[in-house]
Amino acid sequence: MSRRTRERDPADLLDAARQGDRGSLARLITLVEEGGERARAVGRLTFPLAGNAYTAGITGPTGSGKSTLTERLISIIRGAGDEVGVLAVDPSSPFSGGAFLGDRVRMQQHATDEGVFIRSMATRGHLGGLALATPEAIRVLDAAGIPWVLVETVGVGQVEIEIAGSADTTVVVVPPGSGDAMQASKAGLLEAADIFVVNKADRPGAAETRRDLEFMLHLSASDLEWTPPIVMTVASTGDGIDDLWKTIADHRAFLAERGLLEKRRAQRLAEELRHVVSQRVEHLAYERCQGPDFDRLLNDVLERRLDPYAAAARLVDG
Amino acid sequence: MSRRTRERDPADLLDAARQGDRGSLARLITLVEEGGERARAVGRLTFPLAGNAYTAGITGPTGSGKSTLTERLISIIRGAGDEVGVLAVDPSSPFSGGAFLGDRVRMQQHATDEGVFIRSMATRGHLGGLALATPEAIRVLDAAGIPWVLVETVGVGQVEIEIAGSADTTVVVVPPGSGDAMQASKAGLLEAADIFVVNKADRPGAAETRRDLEFMLHLSASDLEWTPPIVMTVASTGDGIDDLWKTIADHRAFLAERGLLEKRRAQRLAEELRHVVSQRVEHLAYERCQGPDFDRLLNDVLERRLDPYAAAARLVDG
Repeated sequence: MSRRTRERDPADLLDAARQGDRGSLARLITLVEEGGERARAVGRLTFPLAGNAYTAGITGPTGSGKSTLTERLISIIRGAGDEVGVLAVDPSSPFSGGAFLGDRVRMQQHATDEGVFIRSMATRGHLGGLALATPEAIRVLDAAGIPWVLVETVGVGQVEIEIAGSADTTVVVVPPGSGDAMQASKAGLLEAADIFVVNKADRPGAAETRRDLEFMLHLSASDLEWTPPIVMTVASTGDGIDDLWKTIADHRAFLAERGLLEKRRAQRLAEELRHVVSQRVEHLAYERCQGPDFDRLLNDVLERRLDPYAAAARLVDG
Repeated sequence: MSRRTRERDPADLLDAARQGDRGSLARLITLVEEGGERARAVGRLTFPLAGNAYTAGITGPTGSGKSTLTERLISIIRGAGDEVGVLAVDPSSPFSGGAFLGDRVRMQQHATDEGVFIRSMATRGHLGGLALATPEAIRVLDAAGIPWVLVETVGVGQVEIEIAGSADTTVVVVPPGSGDAMQASKAGLLEAADIFVVNKADRPGAAETRRDLEFMLHLSASDLEWTPPIVMTVASTGDGIDDLWKTIADHRAFLAERGLLEKRRAQRLAEELRHVVSQRVEHLAYERCQGPDFDRLLNDVLERRLDPYAAAARLVDG
C-alpha cells in the first residue's frame, strides 16, 4: 500500500475500489476497523450502494476444516467467473493479523488471483467490536461490486455465531465424532444454521454425527418451512463440495421466492441499528463517568449533598 | 399494612419509621423495590440521613447454613440491646416473597421482636435490579436509625457476591467437604471475603476445608494488611458464634483505625454512581429504540437513505 493511497479520502478510495483496485479496498476496510469519523464517512458512502452481494457465513469449532471448505467454495465461485470477497473473523483475538491471514497458508493458492479478496478482520478502534465492524466491511465489498462475500468465523462463542448468523445463508460445519453434534447444539449453532456440513465425512463417526444432528433437528422442529439440510463433505479431496454449493443456491432461491431475503435483511438492519444505538449510549455512559463534572458530582454524593440517582440524572440528562 | 399507610407520602413514612413504625419501614422498602419516582423520593430523603449503620454481608453456597448463622448473629446483636435489620436477597428469584421470608421458618423466633426487622428483597420494577435496590434498602434501614444491617445473599452468582461484597464486612460461609473451598475460590468468593466461616465444623472434612482455605489465602496473599481470618462455627448449636462476632468487631475496628471504613464506603458510592449512570443510559437506549422516531429512522435505513450510524446519532443525540 503506497503512502499516497493512505492519504486519499474515502470517496476517492471507493471510486478506485469500484474500478478493481484491491489496495484501495483493503484501505477502506482498515478505515472501518479503526472506527471514528473516517469509518463513518466510509459507511455513508458504501451504505446506499450496498445490498447486492450475497453473503454466506461459515462457522463451526476449531478443527472442523472450515478454512479448507472456504477455499473450495472460493474455487467454485471463481470457476463460475464471479469475484468473491472473504472475511476471516476471530473476535477472540485482539489482532488477527490485519491484511494478512497469517498461517492460513492454504488460501494462498488464491493469493495471486485478482478476483479473490481475502482479509482478516480486527477491531483496531471500532467501539462496537467485530460484531459491528463486520457488516460494515461486508458493505465495503458489496459497494465495490463484489457479488459474493464469505464470512468465516473462528470458534463458536456468542459473538462468532452472531457474526456468522448475520449472513444470508449460514453454514455450520461440524466435525465427525461422538458428542460433537451435541456440543454444536449447546453452543447455539443449531438455531443459527441454515445448512449443516459434516466435514471430514470419510472419518469414523460421520454417519453417527449426521444421525445425531437429524435427531436434534427433529427435536427442535418448529413450523419453519426450511429444515436445515445436512451435507456430507470431505473438503480435503473436494467430495461433496458441489452438493454444498447447490444447497447454498437452493437456500438462496428459497429465501428469494418467498420474499424472505429482503425480510431477513431488514430484520438484520433493524438489529444493527439497535446495536449501534446501544453502543453509542454505552460510550456516552463511559464519557459521562470521566472528567471534572463527574468528579464534582461524586464529591457532592460523598458529602451527602446529593443522592446517586440525582447525580446520575444530572450527568446523563445534562 | 393498612390502606391508609399505603397512601402516605415518603416523608411521612420516614418520620413514622424513625419513630419505630415497622409497617412504614416495610412500605418504604417496597417503594424502593418498585423503582420510579417514589423510589427517587425515598432516596432523596434517606441518603442525607444514612451512613451510620454498620453492614455485614453473609454469603456462601446453598446448604452452608447461612440462615442459621444469621439467626445467631441477630440473637447476639439483640442481646447487646441493639436493633438489627436483615435483608435476605436472592437475585436468582424474580419474586422472593416480598415482606415475608417464605420457608425461612427458623428466623420466626425473632418475628415478634420489634427490635428485629427481617425482609426479603425483590425487584418489583427497579431497573437496576437487586444490585442497585439493595444499597437503597440499606439506606432506608440506616436512615430509620437501625445501627446494624445484615445482608444475607442466597447462592454464589456474580450479583450475589457483588451485593454481599458491598457490605462493610463480608462474611463468606463455606460448608465442610472436599472441594468446597476450591468451589468458593472459583466463584470469586476468595476476593470478596473479609472473614471466612467454616460452618457445620462438627462434620467430617471441616479441618481439611480450613487447611484448603489457608492454602488458597496463602497463594493469593498480597500486601494487604488484613488477611481474612477463618472462623470455625456450628451454627445449629451456637459454637463459635461469639468468636465470629468478635472477629466482625475486630474487622470493624481495623477499618475504622486506618480510615479504611470511610475510604471503602466512598469507593462503593463512586461505584454505585457509575452503575446508576450506566443503568440510566441503558434505559435511554431502550427508550430510543421504541416509538415513532425509531420507526421513521429505521424506515430511512431500510430504504438506504440513511446509514445505521447516522440514524443512531440522530436517535441518541437528538
